[in-house]
Amino acid sequence: MTERQGGCCAAKGFSASGVYAGVRKNPEKKDLALIYAECDCSVAALYTTNRVKAAPIYVTMRNLERGTTRAIIANSGNANACAPGGEENAQKICDTLAKELGIKPDEIIINSTGVIGVPLPVDAVTGAIPQLTRGLSRYGSDDAANAIMTTDTFAKQVAVETKIAGKTVRIGGIAKGSGMIHPNMATMLAFITTDIAITSEMLKTALTESNRITYNRISVDGDTSTNDMVAILASGLAKNTQIEWKDTDYRVFLEALNYVNGKLAKMIARDGEGATKLVSCLVKGASSEEAAEKLAMSVISSSLVKAAMFGADANWGREICAMGYSKAPFKPELTDISFVSGGESIAVCKDGAGLSFNEADAKRILEREEIQILVDVHDGVFEAEAFGCDLTYEYVRINGDYRT
Amino acid sequence: MTERQGGCCAAKGFSASGVYAGVRKNPEKKDLALIYAECDCSVAALYTTNRVKAAPIYVTMRNLERGTTRAIIANSGNANACAPGGEENAQKICDTLAKELGIKPDEIIINSTGVIGVPLPVDAVTGAIPQLTRGLSRYGSDDAANAIMTTDTFAKQVAVETKIAGKTVRIGGIAKGSGMIHPNMATMLAFITTDIAITSEMLKTALTESNRITYNRISVDGDTSTNDMVAILASGLAKNTQIEWKDTDYRVFLEALNYVNGKLAKMIARDGEGATKLVSCLVKGASSEEAAEKLAMSVISSSLVKAAMFGADANWGREICAMGYSKAPFKPELTDISFVSGGESIAVCKDGAGLSFNEADAKRILEREEIQILVDVHDGVFEAEAFGCDLTYEYVRINGDYRT
Repeated sequence: MTERQGGCCAAKGFSASGVYAGVRKNPEKKDLALIYAECDCSVAALYTTNRVKAAPIYVTMRNLERGTTRAIIANSGNANACAPGGEENAQKICDTLAKELGIKPDEIIINSTGVIGVPLPVDAVTGAIPQLTRGLSRYGSDDAANAIMTTDTFAKQVAVETKIAGKTVRIGGIAKGSGMIHPNMATMLAFITTDIAITSEMLKTALTESNRITYNRISVDGDTSTNDMVAILASGLAKNTQIEWKDTDYRVFLEALNYVNGKLAKMIARDGEGATKLVSCLVKGASSEEAAEKLAMSVISSSLVKAAMFGADANWGREICAMGYSKAPFKPELTDISFVSGGESIAVCKDGAGLSFNEADAKRILEREEIQILVDVHDGVFEAEAFGCDLTYEYVRINGDYRT
Repeated sequence: MTERQGGCCAAKGFSASGVYAGVRKNPEKKDLALIYAECDCSVAALYTTNRVKAAPIYVTMRNLERGTTRAIIANSGNANACAPGGEENAQKICDTLAKELGIKPDEIIINSTGVIGVPLPVDAVTGAIPQLTRGLSRYGSDDAANAIMTTDTFAKQVAVETKIAGKTVRIGGIAKGSGMIHPNMATMLAFITTDIAITSEMLKTALTESNRITYNRISVDGDTSTNDMVAILASGLAKNTQIEWKDTDYRVFLEALNYVNGKLAKMIARDGEGATKLVSCLVKGASSEEAAEKLAMSVISSSLVKAAMFGADANWGREICAMGYSKAPFKPELTDISFVSGGESIAVCKDGAGLSFNEADAKRILEREEIQILVDVHDGVFEAEAFGCDLTYEYVRINGDYRT
C-alpha cells in the first residue's frame, strides 16, 4: 500500500469540483462541492446519531435505499438543519443537479454543514450547479475539499493505492471537521471513493468496521453534530473480482480503508477548532477493547486534560481522574502513565502513584505538536488509541462568536 | 423559612475555623478548615462516583460506618489522591485531631482538594492542628469556607432558619467548587450542618433526595473529581421530636435542605473556573423528569453552548443539537427555545425551526450575568433545571497551567 495524490479523484471513474455559490458571505471561500462518478457505484453511508438530524440527511437516507449512487453534493456555510423548507430545498438541489448531470435525483448523496436554524439560500446553490458541473475534473479533489471546509484551517484529503488479487486498486477521500467532533459516528463529513468492485452490503460492513476504530475514536469538543456523515462510493473500475464476503480481498480492502479513514480522522483531530496540537491516548493492557476505548476516549475528551496539554503541563492526575469517571473497568493502583513525543518518553505515574520526574524534560515533550498519552492498566491484553486536540483560547474565541 | 448569617455555624452546636497550614505555597490563602460539633451528630455523606477515589474518601467511608461524627477536617492545595502513603497520612491527621479535640479518630470526616499525585505534606497539616482547634468559633464559617477554596473566586456559604413542629431549626453549610464540577454527586465539597434531631438513616435519605436535584444538576466542565463529597451533620440541639420517617417534619426539613444545597450548587456553577455568568437550562413539557434532566444537563454541558453564552451569541442551534445527542426522548419538531434574563425573554425557535428575532435584543439579554435557556418540548408535564456557566479564555488559562 502506498500513498498517492488525487484525494477523492484518485480512484478510477471519479471527478470533483468546488465553487463559490454564495451560501457564505465571503466570496473568497468556496462553499459548494461535487463528487461525480462516471458509472453506477456501490454505496454505503453512516449518519449522525443525533436525534436532531439535518434535512439533507433524511433525503440521502431515502436516496440510498435504491443501492447505487452517482454523485455527492455538499455545501458549507449553512447546515440546512432546523430551518423551514429544509427537505424541499435539499430535494430541489438534487433535482437540479440530476438534470444537469443526466442522472436520477435519487442517485445523489446530499449534505450541508454550517450554522443551524437559518434557511438555506437554495437559489444560490441551484444557481451555481451549472458552473459546478462544468468544473468537474480529475484534478478537482482540492477544490471539493476546500469547499466543504467550515472553520477548518487546512483541506483534508488522502489517497492510497494497493493490490487486490493482482489488480491495482485505489481508495481516496476528503473530509471536513473542526468543531462538533465526537464519536458515535456523528463526527463530521467524510466522502470516500474507491474503484474496487464490491457489493454495497460488503461496503457497508467495511465502512462500519472501519468507522468504529477511526472516526469514532476522535473527539474535539464532545459535541455531536446534526449533519455528520461518512459516505463511500465504489465504482468497480479496478476490475477486481467483486468482493462479496469477508475473504482475503476484503481484508486487504479494509486495511486500506482503515488507513484512509484513520489518516482523515487524525487530520480532523489535529485541526480541532483552535487546536495547536494533536493529542492521542493509547491505552494498553485493558481487559477488553471496549474498556480500552472508553478509557482512551475519556482521557482525550476531558477539558481539563485538553487545557493541560495546551499549557504543556504534565498534570497526569487529570488523565487518571478522567479514566476514573469513564465507567470502564481498570485498577488505578496498577496504572502506569507516560507522555511520549518525538521519540522521547517520560514516565510520570507508576502503579497509580506519582513518580518524581524532571519537569523540564516533561515540558520539552509536551510542547511538541504531537503528543501521545501512553497508559498501561496491566489488566489484560487489549488496547485502543483515541485522538483529540488541546483546548485553547482560540477555541473559545471561534465559538464565542461563530455566527457573526 | 428565612435566610440567616452564620454558614456552617448557624445551627446550634457547631463551631468552625480555618488557618494557613502550609500545604499551599501562598501563606495569604488559608488551606486547612475544621468544623466541630459539641455533641455526637447523626451523619450522612455522598462520595464521588469516580473509580479513582482519593485516600481521605476511603478513611471517611470507614469512619462513617460507626454512625456518629464530631468533626470535619479538610485541606486545600493537595488532593491526597494517587500519592504514596495517602491513607496513612489521612489517618495520621485524624489521630492528631482526635487527640487535640478529645474525641475518637473515627468520629472524623476528612477530605482534601487540590492537585492529584503529589504526596500530602502531612506534617504541615498535623503541625497546624493545635492552632486550628484553638481558633474554633461560632463565627468561624467564613474562615472555614475560605480555607477549602481552590480556584474559587468567592467563599460559598448559606444558612436558613425554619420551624419544625413549633421548634426553630437551622441548616447551613459551606462549599467549594470551581473546576471539575459534574454530576453523579461527584461534584465538589459541601459540608452541611443542622441542629435538627433526625436519625442518620433519614439524614441519608434526605441528602440523597436533595443531591439529585441540586449538586447533580450542575456542570462546569464535565470532569468528575476524585475527592468530591457532600456531608451533613445533625446535632439534634433544636430539640424537635426526632425525625424517623418521611412525615411532614421530614418534608419541611427536606425543603430547607434543598434550599441550602440548591443555593450552594448555584454558587458553584456561577463560580466555575473562568466563568463570567451563570447559565441555566430549564426544560419543560418533558415526558419524564429523567428526560427533562438529561436534556437540560446536555445543554449546559456543551462546550459549544458554553462558548456561545460567553460570546452572547443567540446560536440556539447549539442547544437543540445538544438536546439531540443527550439520548433523552423528545421531538425536535415540537421544541420551542427562548433566552430569558432580567425579566426579559426572547423566543428564538418554535416547533424546531428558527424564528426571526432582533439580534440586538438577544445580545442585550445574553450579555447579562444570569441567563436562562428556556426549552419547552411539548411532550409531557415534567420539568428539570440544570445550572452551569460559560466557557471563557480564563478557563483555558487557569487549566493550562494549574500546577505551576
